[in-house]
Amino acid sequence: MPETPTRQLRLNAFLHDTGHHEASWRHPDSAVEHIADIAWYQDIARRVEAAKLDAVFLADSPAWYGTGYRPSNQFEPITLLTALATVTERIGLISTASTSFYEPFNLARLFASLDTISGGRAGWNVVTTYNEDAAHNFGLDGVPGNEERYARAQEFLDVVTRLWDSWEDDAVVADRASGDYVDTSKVHRIDHAGRYLKVRGPFSSPRTPQGRPVYVQAGSSNAGRAFAARNAEAIFTAHQTLGDAQAFYDDIKSRAVSLGRDPGHVLVLPGISPFIADTATQAEELYQYVNGLTVPEFGLGQLEKIAGTSLHHLELDERVPAELFGGAGNVLDNQRSRTQVVANIVERDRPTLRELLHRLAGGRGHNVVHGTPVQVADVIQTWFENRAADGFNIMPPLYPQLLDAFTEKVVPILQDRGLFRTEYTGSTLREHYGLPRPASGYAGSWPLSADLPLAGAR
Amino acid sequence: MPETPTRQLRLNAFLHDTGHHEASWRHPDSAVEHIADIAWYQDIARRVEAAKLDAVFLADSPAWYGTGYRPSNQFEPITLLTALATVTERIGLISTASTSFYEPFNLARLFASLDTISGGRAGWNVVTTYNEDAAHNFGLDGVPGNEERYARAQEFLDVVTRLWDSWEDDAVVADRASGDYVDTSKVHRIDHAGRYLKVRGPFSSPRTPQGRPVYVQAGSSNAGRAFAARNAEAIFTAHQTLGDAQAFYDDIKSRAVSLGRDPGHVLVLPGISPFIADTATQAEELYQYVNGLTVPEFGLGQLEKIAGTSLHHLELDERVPAELFGGAGNVLDNQRSRTQVVANIVERDRPTLRELLHRLAGGRGHNVVHGTPVQVADVIQTWFENRAADGFNIMPPLYPQLLDAFTEKVVPILQDRGLFRTEYTGSTLREHYGLPRPASGYAGSWPLSADLPLAGAR
Repeated sequence: MPETPTRQLRLNAFLHDTGHHEASWRHPDSAVEHIADIAWYQDIARRVEAAKLDAVFLADSPAWYGTGYRPSNQFEPITLLTALATVTERIGLISTASTSFYEPFNLARLFASLDTISGGRAGWNVVTTYNEDAAHNFGLDGVPGNEERYARAQEFLDVVTRLWDSWEDDAVVADRASGDYVDTSKVHRIDHAGRYLKVRGPFSSPRTPQGRPVYVQAGSSNAGRAFAARNAEAIFTAHQTLGDAQAFYDDIKSRAVSLGRDPGHVLVLPGISPFIADTATQAEELYQYVNGLTVPEFGLGQLEKIAGTSLHHLELDERVPAELFGGAGNVLDNQRSRTQVVANIVERDRPTLRELLHRLAGGRGHNVVHGTPVQVADVIQTWFENRAADGFNIMPPLYPQLLDAFTEKVVPILQDRGLFRTEYTGSTLREHYGLPRPASGYAGSWPLSADLPLAGAR
Repeated sequence: MPETPTRQLRLNAFLHDTGHHEASWRHPDSAVEHIADIAWYQDIARRVEAAKLDAVFLADSPAWYGTGYRPSNQFEPITLLTALATVTERIGLISTASTSFYEPFNLARLFASLDTISGGRAGWNVVTTYNEDAAHNFGLDGVPGNEERYARAQEFLDVVTRLWDSWEDDAVVADRASGDYVDTSKVHRIDHAGRYLKVRGPFSSPRTPQGRPVYVQAGSSNAGRAFAARNAEAIFTAHQTLGDAQAFYDDIKSRAVSLGRDPGHVLVLPGISPFIADTATQAEELYQYVNGLTVPEFGLGQLEKIAGTSLHHLELDERVPAELFGGAGNVLDNQRSRTQVVANIVERDRPTLRELLHRLAGGRGHNVVHGTPVQVADVIQTWFENRAADGFNIMPPLYPQLLDAFTEKVVPILQDRGLFRTEYTGSTLREHYGLPRPASGYAGSWPLSADLPLAGAR
């Protein structure tokens, strides 16, 4: 056995019903008949674990997509991950959840419960949600601005951190003889009264295996990067080119260092959506075949949300005018980071509208690649070794077929090259990611450490 | 095989860590070391299912108990039930959740997901929560009054009902050829803007196996009974005597009939906490032994919350003055229904303080019995046949030992007497309870039917 190299790839499988390609469900071999069947997801989770990946990842927005052309979410993500936790032993379980639409005490309980049920495998992808449809489901007439959403997010994260820390690790004594179950001196009110939230605590249950779930973040706006550099332990991000990804990677690591954090504890994980086949030609044919299943009306609607303007005057085979996405004035600040990705594609590659729709159909702005297993492994290695990524959120275009192609054909290459584990060495997500288990801030003093400063620490 | 009688007992197992007796965790054979271990709960759920019981039931309040003398909750209940769903196939899964402290869209998603994951076994025990400690965890300085809590509860229930109904049962078409996944004419906004809540919808996912989870309710105040008679399909209630239970049963059924509902679709399920042994003497010895493990300081604290006054001036072996619980002015309206149970005990039985603490230690006001399997079966049959109960929420004082005693020794007697199923005949909780699956109100018109009127129906 070769010595384990210091730096190892982190690989998540980003679950998304029949696959990340918007037309995947129309593929003749798609599992669209099974996406309300929990056993189907459990089977996928077992495959991810058999391949020794770090985690499964779920996106979320508390609203219907509002279109008839795609499957809706079938499950609430934390309950879905709970069901996956019971049939797996090692893989991490990362769910997106919004700081804008949850009561912090409720969300803290859900993640704590998932962490306990799974034996320390929970991760929370902290998002602020810029979906207007979601806002309307929570008593709001629209989403607040980017800066305000992140201000609430920081306060929310500080509150749930304190709740998770409010029971010190050794608070439970369970002494039958004396009748003392809890040492109440080690259970703390948090007594938070801030700009957005008022929460007294203490938390309803003891500290969980990981202390806190792994903090993940996925925003790329300026406020999002600042939030990530301060709080995130892993960052899920979308880049089309090595250069863009390197710039982002460098920016995030620099920001983290300037806040006194260990940059190795801030993992950058771009999305990648690989069409894999034995030959490059077959891979491209598969890519084109699935693109051919798209409904242009659907893609156009999605693109108009990103552009912030109607695009129905454009012909499908007409080149997209660069100025449509170039200006910043015509899009909501909320959507600017995704708009920037599209603007870069349009400016660099000058696609037709049809080509642009196909580019976005696979990964909604994430990097869609097609090639042989070696070619896909080469992309991953190149990004990993050139400070563009610490690992990847793998977004199979078609589940489970293109997950299997990745795990059965690409992962062994990465293992042979010494870039990825052949066995799990830990049992928690923190251990897989090489992250420390945080002590309770109440066992020491706030801020706990320079590595995870808390904005509200006094 | 005998013909199945028309009316059958409904039996739930009310889970509660080491047991319902407050001192159960101190028993030498208690499972206190295992209560954070999901496998331990999964094992209990399998036993409940093997005995063909209708459901497991979980209480909940989003706060720490605030005492060092009892185990705290280890899990958030909906995630816990999700983990139990994955290792069982038939038992219903009922969780308590508060209408005061949840956003309706979030709670609707959690229960819908549980119903889908479990194949139609979810039940929601709708409570308004009068726990002051919980209110402080949700930005409030105290709990609102009883009437206001129930007004919000009614609006909340109407909102989530409409969300669950907002996808008609046949909305998903999944037609690969046309690219139509959803018939959007069958997915409806709810456009609710009421006194407490504003929710647009539609819901985020298709309709679930049961359409809606079974609606359970557990309040006994006047507002609680009115709410139950209007909305509940099963009612969990606390009574110490056959007479009290009969009066409640008659009141609820009469109220339901006067609202045009089928009284057979409003099941009344008192709690019962049985100490079971082969002889009556052994059963009483076990009861006394576990009572001897109580910490009087803990019980006194609980009793003071019910009394709404300090009791520290009383000696443990002094008779409790009847007037302490007789008046209504000295307790919060919120707590009156539980106070009434205690007042009845004090007035009828004139216990000493120690005796009263022991009476309450087992079931917090629920009916604690001790006896042989035949004696326990006799109590159940008597209540069932004399219009005091349609079934019971079984509250084993010590888990799993006294669950096993019930399932292995009492259940067979009830089966021999033709009162309880020997095999499941359905697969959903609605089928176990003999309740209809509601059609979506959007497929017809509101109110859906006289059987489940909606307050906000227009």
